[in-house]
Amino acid sequence: MLNVKTSEQARDIICSSFKDSIPGFEAVEIEDCLGRILYEDIRCGEPVPGFDRSTVDGYAVAASSTFGCSDSMPAILKQTAEVIMGQETPAQIDADSCAYVPTGGHIPFGANAMVMIEHTEDYGDGTLGILRPCAPGSNIIFKGDDVKKGTVVFRRGTRLSCAEIGVLAALGQARVKVFKRPRVAVISTGDELADVRSKLLAGQIRDVNGYVLCSSLEAIGCEPVHSGIIKDDAGDLLGSVRLACESSDLVLISGGSSVGVKDAVFQTIDALGEVFFHGISIKPGKPTICGKVGSVPVFGLPGHPLAAYFIFDIFVRPLLFSLMGACDARRPSIAVLDTAIPSNHGREECVPVKIYGDEGDLCCSPVFIKSGLISALSSTHGYIRIPRDCEGLSKGEPVKITLY
Amino acid sequence: MLNVKTSEQARDIICSSFKDSIPGFEAVEIEDCLGRILYEDIRCGEPVPGFDRSTVDGYAVAASSTFGCSDSMPAILKQTAEVIMGQETPAQIDADSCAYVPTGGHIPFGANAMVMIEHTEDYGDGTLGILRPCAPGSNIIFKGDDVKKGTVVFRRGTRLSCAEIGVLAALGQARVKVFKRPRVAVISTGDELADVRSKLLAGQIRDVNGYVLCSSLEAIGCEPVHSGIIKDDAGDLLGSVRLACESSDLVLISGGSSVGVKDAVFQTIDALGEVFFHGISIKPGKPTICGKVGSVPVFGLPGHPLAAYFIFDIFVRPLLFSLMGACDARRPSIAVLDTAIPSNHGREECVPVKIYGDEGDLCCSPVFIKSGLISALSSTHGYIRIPRDCEGLSKGEPVKITLY
Repeated sequence: MLNVKTSEQARDIICSSFKDSIPGFEAVEIEDCLGRILYEDIRCGEPVPGFDRSTVDGYAVAASSTFGCSDSMPAILKQTAEVIMGQETPAQIDADSCAYVPTGGHIPFGANAMVMIEHTEDYGDGTLGILRPCAPGSNIIFKGDDVKKGTVVFRRGTRLSCAEIGVLAALGQARVKVFKRPRVAVISTGDELADVRSKLLAGQIRDVNGYVLCSSLEAIGCEPVHSGIIKDDAGDLLGSVRLACESSDLVLISGGSSVGVKDAVFQTIDALGEVFFHGISIKPGKPTICGKVGSVPVFGLPGHPLAAYFIFDIFVRPLLFSLMGACDARRPSIAVLDTAIPSNHGREECVPVKIYGDEGDLCCSPVFIKSGLISALSSTHGYIRIPRDCEGLSKGEPVKITLY
Repeated sequence: MLNVKTSEQARDIICSSFKDSIPGFEAVEIEDCLGRILYEDIRCGEPVPGFDRSTVDGYAVAASSTFGCSDSMPAILKQTAEVIMGQETPAQIDADSCAYVPTGGHIPFGANAMVMIEHTEDYGDGTLGILRPCAPGSNIIFKGDDVKKGTVVFRRGTRLSCAEIGVLAALGQARVKVFKRPRVAVISTGDELADVRSKLLAGQIRDVNGYVLCSSLEAIGCEPVHSGIIKDDAGDLLGSVRLACESSDLVLISGGSSVGVKDAVFQTIDALGEVFFHGISIKPGKPTICGKVGSVPVFGLPGHPLAAYFIFDIFVRPLLFSLMGACDARRPSIAVLDTAIPSNHGREECVPVKIYGDEGDLCCSPVFIKSGLISALSSTHGYIRIPRDCEGLSKGEPVKITLY
């Protein structure tokens, strides 16, 4: 007898049961932090830029010395030493002087505006004509304009994409604390399973879940540990799960499809720790088990690849994101359903769909498949979830699609 | 003088100039192929499943022997040996017999349907009552139902996500040929640049482009080689670019912002190979250079991080995807512009935007920023491209956003 929970109940139990299971942090170099999630707030330790910089090639001036000038009546200023790129300038500007500054160069003391070179005339005698007036602050990025010293630039939990990595570089942050990648053991059970590298004997099928789950884990930034195939033997399973729980942050057991094996997974978790629930009112994926061994979350997933994938995606993936201190930023796509889907009679249902059409005008077709077909996963783009109290979906209805 | 091209011209030149630059293939193990792109078609060498399988726990029968039975008038069949999971069964079924088969088990010769155990009654004397008639094919996945032998399952150019990896596992494909990851050298030029690990001297700013470009390359599956900072010296640059071209599949040089350096990058590419264009009519990003040294594409990107990122994203990224034999599957998001953007006077313009609101009802705000501010990249979500012949965008207009 399964003690079946609704999706919402299952989610709530998962949310509340694993608060103390966070794997902790590690420090990584900036070159290795793509996709990692910050464990610490990042505060700006040096203003960016660190000095007033020109955004044009031209002349640094005191803006007031250009007021009222024009093509016909240039402001005549004395040229002082050029500013050299990458060096602090010793030059000082007053009402009668100016200095050449290249784009990105240091604005000399006393100047508060840059005149573009196109708006000047070099008389060749050490003086320069300014042909257009400029306002204070023109063509300058001031010290700290990009990031002020002391600002909290990124909060704990920020996922580091190339934009954030660029800002870390600008701030001189070569090493940051990030959440450890959860180490997740993946065990496949079943006497009928053969590994991808084995000779396939009569009556055997290949283990698919091990590879789908490991690559799904890798894709979201976890560290999968492929523990391989365990035969339907209570003793073997107990040993493998115990070992996995000692060396991992989370354990996934998929399969087997026979009644005996389902009991073995349940009994194994129950013997080593605690089972929170056995069974979710969802199709496919009903025979799901969730429990804990020590502080390690352990899931028993269905043996059918599609069901195992859906249960992983809906229930385990959000938990892994929360163990990594992050939110799952995946946004659903909206598409118009091109075929009605009948009522699912009181069980939540996941239906794989194909998407077609252009952005802003997307359509989708539900794909109804025999249980256990793995090709369905690669020939569709995502899935829709039909709530258990829904009386079916109509043709033409917009639906939310979770993309793989 | 720049020989400025429109975006379309630049794209066409890039498309047609690097057809012979594909880095080739390598064979990788299934554990290492997430995100890689197939170099070969994958054909099904063994049917999936390899035998007729039950999808339920129950009894294998000849369907015709159940026709007309009911609760009150069961069909009485003799039970032969149980089918053992993962083994071929020697049992043979005829019109008078049946065999127990667990979910996933091998259907014995002579049977063509499975009766669920719930619809049977075991009399304990070696006979079984079938309580409901079943149609031929009921509750069976037939040999090759999932994938038929000889089918081309994936075409060259397919990106391997977890779904495809699952199918490869099911097919017994432990090793596949994939496009080599393009090795891309990233060089930053500029006397004003300091690396993230250096002490920042007065007048210096930190190199941002090196880190943004390397992580962007990594994110799309290329192999970045960070060549560091080269000072504004024609000889140094020539040596570095020559070396990079010898050991990489593509070379990116960013910066510097001074006139002198722009010339040096142009002259370097021109000296070592050929320059196709110098300047794109796009804002930001005008001073972009595209050329070739041997068969190696070489790009001179602007020094400003935001401009360098946009040019990389718009022009280099599609080329890298095509060198990897793939399409860029990124779909734009559609959102409603909440602020009008004035005309851009004959130059294409990229404007970073913040996105807010719910899926299906997204809005976006343009963010206007001083040139060169890196924080703009991390505080926005993507950018819109305003074509050069567009007279500005109105408030309330739906726009396409390329997400970072």
